[in-house]
Amino acid sequence: MKVARSVLYQQVAAELRRAIYSGVLGPGSQLPTEAQLMEDHGVSRNTVRLALGELVNEGLVTRTPRRGTVVRDRRPLLIYPQRELEPQPTGELREAFAYAVAQEGRAPSQYIEVLTVSPVEEIASRLELADGELAVVRRRLRFVDGQPYNTNDSYFPRDMVADSEIARPGDIARGANRVLEELGHAQIRVVDDIWARMPNQEEAERLQLELGTPVMVYVRVGFDGADMPVRVAVSVLPADKHLIRYELDRR
Amino acid sequence: MKVARSVLYQQVAAELRRAIYSGVLGPGSQLPTEAQLMEDHGVSRNTVRLALGELVNEGLVTRTPRRGTVVRDRRPLLIYPQRELEPQPTGELREAFAYAVAQEGRAPSQYIEVLTVSPVEEIASRLELADGELAVVRRRLRFVDGQPYNTNDSYFPRDMVADSEIARPGDIARGANRVLEELGHAQIRVVDDIWARMPNQEEAERLQLELGTPVMVYVRVGFDGADMPVRVAVSVLPADKHLIRYELDRR
Repeated sequence: MKVARSVLYQQVAAELRRAIYSGVLGPGSQLPTEAQLMEDHGVSRNTVRLALGELVNEGLVTRTPRRGTVVRDRRPLLIYPQRELEPQPTGELREAFAYAVAQEGRAPSQYIEVLTVSPVEEIASRLELADGELAVVRRRLRFVDGQPYNTNDSYFPRDMVADSEIARPGDIARGANRVLEELGHAQIRVVDDIWARMPNQEEAERLQLELGTPVMVYVRVGFDGADMPVRVAVSVLPADKHLIRYELDRR
Repeated sequence: MKVARSVLYQQVAAELRRAIYSGVLGPGSQLPTEAQLMEDHGVSRNTVRLALGELVNEGLVTRTPRRGTVVRDRRPLLIYPQRELEPQPTGELREAFAYAVAQEGRAPSQYIEVLTVSPVEEIASRLELADGELAVVRRRLRFVDGQPYNTNDSYFPRDMVADSEIARPGDIARGANRVLEELGHAQIRVVDDIWARMPNQEEAERLQLELGTPVMVYVRVGFDGADMPVRVAVSVLPADKHLIRYELDRR
C-alpha cells in the first residue's frame, strides 16, 4: 500500500512540476485548489497534500492559507564569484553582489558598520592571526530594491589596515580590495568555500527569511603575493534567492 | 524583556561555540547537561534551550534524548570541482567524488543504474534537446565507508551516446567523460551552478538525512569544442557532509 501511494503522489507532483518548469504555470500563478486537484487526478486529499509538499520542499511553490498554493518567482540572483577578480575598464575591482544586481536592472544598496573585533576561532585561523590579534570587520547587510537579501562580513588583520580607509566607518567608493592593493597586499589568489546550513535566529530575523529556508555560506579567503591571508569575506546567502555560478575553461 | 533574553542566550551560545571551535569540546564530546548549563551560566532552562537550538541550527551539535548534546564531527567531505578537469598522469579524468574520498583515506563506492528517459524540462533545456528528444541518464547513489553520502545523475543526449558504453548498464572504469572524448565530444568548458534547498522525501530517505538537513544542488554542464552541451551532471549533496571549494589564481 505504501508503495502504491508513494507512486501516486509523485505522479501528481511530476505533472505539476512539468507545468511549472515549462511555464504553463508561471511565477505568481495560483495552482488549482486541493479539491480541484483531487478531482482532476482522481486521488485523495492526502495524496494531493503529499504532492504539494514535494513542490514546497523543492522551492517551487509557497502555500499560505489565504492565497493557496502559488508558483514562486524562481529567478535567483546569479552570483559570479570569478568576476570580482577580473580587471575592470576603470581598473577597479567589481564587487560581485552589486555587479550581479545591476546586471538585472535592479537597485543594490547596503547598510555597513565597521568594527574592531576579536574574531571567532574559525575566522582567526583562516586569517592566520596570532593569539589575541585583532581584526577589522566591515559588516554589510545588503538589499535589492529595498528588500534585505544577504549579509557580507569582510575581515582584515587590524595591524595591516588600521591606518587605512578600511578601518574607518562608511563606504569605500573604490572598494576595500583596491585599498588592500594600495597597501601592497593585492589579492592574487583566492580560495572559495561553499556550504549550506539552516540559519540561526539572528540571521532569520535580519534577512526576513521564510520558515524552513536554508542559507548558503560562501567564504572567500584572499591571499597576497607572499601567500599571506589578507581578507576573509563571509557571505550568508538565503538559498531561495541566490545561485552561485563558476565557469571553467580547459583551453 | 525580549531583548534581554535574546542577548543572554546568545552569550551562552557564543561561549559554547568558542569552546567547540577552539577544540576544547572536540567532535563527539558531550556538552554539559541542561541543568549544569543553567547553574554554570545562572540562566533559565528556556535560555539554555535557545542557546543549544542555535548550535543545532548551525550544525555544530546534535541533540538526542538518550545521549544528550554532542559535538558533531564537522569535517565535511571536500569537493574540488576543478580537479575533474585536470589531466591525470594516466590521461584519465578524475571523478571529483571518488578523488575527494580517496584523499581522506576513506572508501568510495556506488550503486549505478543506467536509463533512457524523457528528462524534465530543466534538464532538457540545459542539454538543448529538441522536443521529444531522449537522454541517457547514469544515476548514482554514492557511499563513503558504506554510508549513503550523495547522489549524482549524469545526463547525455541519447543520439550522441546510444552506441557507446555510456548507454550500457554498469560502471565505466575509465569514466564517462573519457568515452565522450573518444566520441569526439571532449568537454572543454563547463558551467557549474550551486544552490541549496530542503530535500524532498525521496532524497531524505535515499540519503538517510537527519530531519532539517538541507542539501546543496551542484549542476555541471559540459560543453564540447563546438560549444554544444554534451553532459549535465546533477549532484545532490547533504549540507552537513559536504563542502565545495574553488581556487582562483589571478597570475
